[in-house]
Amino acid sequence: MGDPAGVGPELVLRALASREIADLCQLVVFGDYAVLQACAAQTGLALPEVDLLQASDLARFPKSLRTSAVVNLQAIERSAFEIAQVSGACGQASFAYIQAALDAALAGQIDAITTAPINKEALHAGGIHYPGHTEMFAERAEAARWCMMQYSTEITCSFVTVHCGYAEVPQLLTQQRVLDTIELTHEALWKIRGKDPQIVVCGLNPHAGEHGLFGNREEETIIIPAMQQAKQRGINLVGPLPPDTCFVPWMRKATDAFVCMYHDQGHIPVKALAFDSAVNTTLGLRVVRTSVDHGTAFDIAWQGLARPDSLWHALRLAAQLGMPAEH
Amino acid sequence: MGDPAGVGPELVLRALASREIADLCQLVVFGDYAVLQACAAQTGLALPEVDLLQASDLARFPKSLRTSAVVNLQAIERSAFEIAQVSGACGQASFAYIQAALDAALAGQIDAITTAPINKEALHAGGIHYPGHTEMFAERAEAARWCMMQYSTEITCSFVTVHCGYAEVPQLLTQQRVLDTIELTHEALWKIRGKDPQIVVCGLNPHAGEHGLFGNREEETIIIPAMQQAKQRGINLVGPLPPDTCFVPWMRKATDAFVCMYHDQGHIPVKALAFDSAVNTTLGLRVVRTSVDHGTAFDIAWQGLARPDSLWHALRLAAQLGMPAEH
Repeated sequence: MGDPAGVGPELVLRALASREIADLCQLVVFGDYAVLQACAAQTGLALPEVDLLQASDLARFPKSLRTSAVVNLQAIERSAFEIAQVSGACGQASFAYIQAALDAALAGQIDAITTAPINKEALHAGGIHYPGHTEMFAERAEAARWCMMQYSTEITCSFVTVHCGYAEVPQLLTQQRVLDTIELTHEALWKIRGKDPQIVVCGLNPHAGEHGLFGNREEETIIIPAMQQAKQRGINLVGPLPPDTCFVPWMRKATDAFVCMYHDQGHIPVKALAFDSAVNTTLGLRVVRTSVDHGTAFDIAWQGLARPDSLWHALRLAAQLGMPAEH
Repeated sequence: MGDPAGVGPELVLRALASREIADLCQLVVFGDYAVLQACAAQTGLALPEVDLLQASDLARFPKSLRTSAVVNLQAIERSAFEIAQVSGACGQASFAYIQAALDAALAGQIDAITTAPINKEALHAGGIHYPGHTEMFAERAEAARWCMMQYSTEITCSFVTVHCGYAEVPQLLTQQRVLDTIELTHEALWKIRGKDPQIVVCGLNPHAGEHGLFGNREEETIIIPAMQQAKQRGINLVGPLPPDTCFVPWMRKATDAFVCMYHDQGHIPVKALAFDSAVNTTLGLRVVRTSVDHGTAFDIAWQGLARPDSLWHALRLAAQLGMPAEH
């Protein structure tokens, strides 16, 4: 449900009322029912009839629920916070929702988590010292290998390196890391597309090095050997392609995902082409997690104005990635 | 006119017949009139009435011409080459056209050059050992400072570094080079827009370094000091901005040009968004030069099929950059 004082509660109300979301997945909200009731009263949004559960109920009825449900964690009362204000109480509540969802996911009671926005300042005020969702999920759902992916129907990029300086990228590129990113991307896109995906691997250097003309032959020594390993494991790949021409429209149409060597190589085209529909996810964790791409938006919170588009995109991707692999 | 055996001659015929181009500039073709006549006969395209000149005529009638003209260099006869075939004779002819145009530009007889496609193999077969136009122009029109620019109405990027390996970029970034690129971009965009342009400077690192979180503070030590110098000289600048979010649609609308730190930072969004309309030019040379973005296209040469869109874009930009600066 995210931070109770932000736009999370009203987005949850919209999701519970959405026919499209109900067709997509069975929604289990980890939050506070009294807060949702208050938000419905304040905004005029409907609060549809739902199963009201305790966290322990999930263990008793694993995956047997057939309607939307709210796991009522009673982490905060409506009187304990001000709308659109940073508070430690809200930070603690939002943290409790995440931990309960992680418990359920790790126990196999839910298939994927989509996170509504939380507030870093509120977490801090509540004595919870995680910078954000990513670190909370990393701590409890860590895996041997992982990679970040930005997904949209227009363009999808996964990343061999992400949050490091420009100059650090070449030494962080390894054959194993490129192979891991290729394999995780292939697995995720097969789930999403329902068929063997077409994956493009980008070069590191301009023109993908142009046979050693630019760069230190990172394409030949790191990227191509990783691609050869992946191909031996049956993965369809094209590349390494010049990073600029690989994102032209006809290439995007023919490609399910681009494996990018560094943050801006993929984030530039994703933000330029799908700035309002791309969903951020981390592949390879023990728990599927997708996230809305906006914050708590205190300036419009509890006014019924928050657009659910980003939540819809995040829920769609969570539903797709949460399905068991079939191949 | 480019390589006589390629699509250059028919594109020149289309340009000579175009009302739009005549309104835009006074066209002076450096080529062979007999080849144009033969191409018109072969393709069915019109060869409009033009002033037929010798190169020496340009000196006698500097800028007094009021109609389109062909400087008839008689570098090749129609019988000396096969359509759509690589030949040394065509390579030598295309080189002769460029040299004559450069002579005229350096003498101030013409204001800008747009190059039609030439063929590297043909040049080589003709004993002319330049890899392409860029090197020919660099040799004769070299300047103390220069930078590459990709221009389109959708997005325009100039480059502090261009054709080098990914890993070489950080050591090639200097305060002077960033300042030069900013100043050349500002001057060019003022000419194109007719008013003080809005220029965005990109960071080098993801999130533009996020105050030292990523990278080696290249933003603080190189980019920001260069921006401060430029601002002191009266240039409007925004940045350094995160390289991914700076290319979102509303930023593109508000920005006349982006100063990019490396090849793919700018080429990725240019090719993704303006793959068929971007024009490549080198700012700062003693001669304005723009170029079509395609090759000799032997597969469709002399069939009247070549689309002139890229030539139109290149001629428009040449006409704008060829105007004297007014500010």
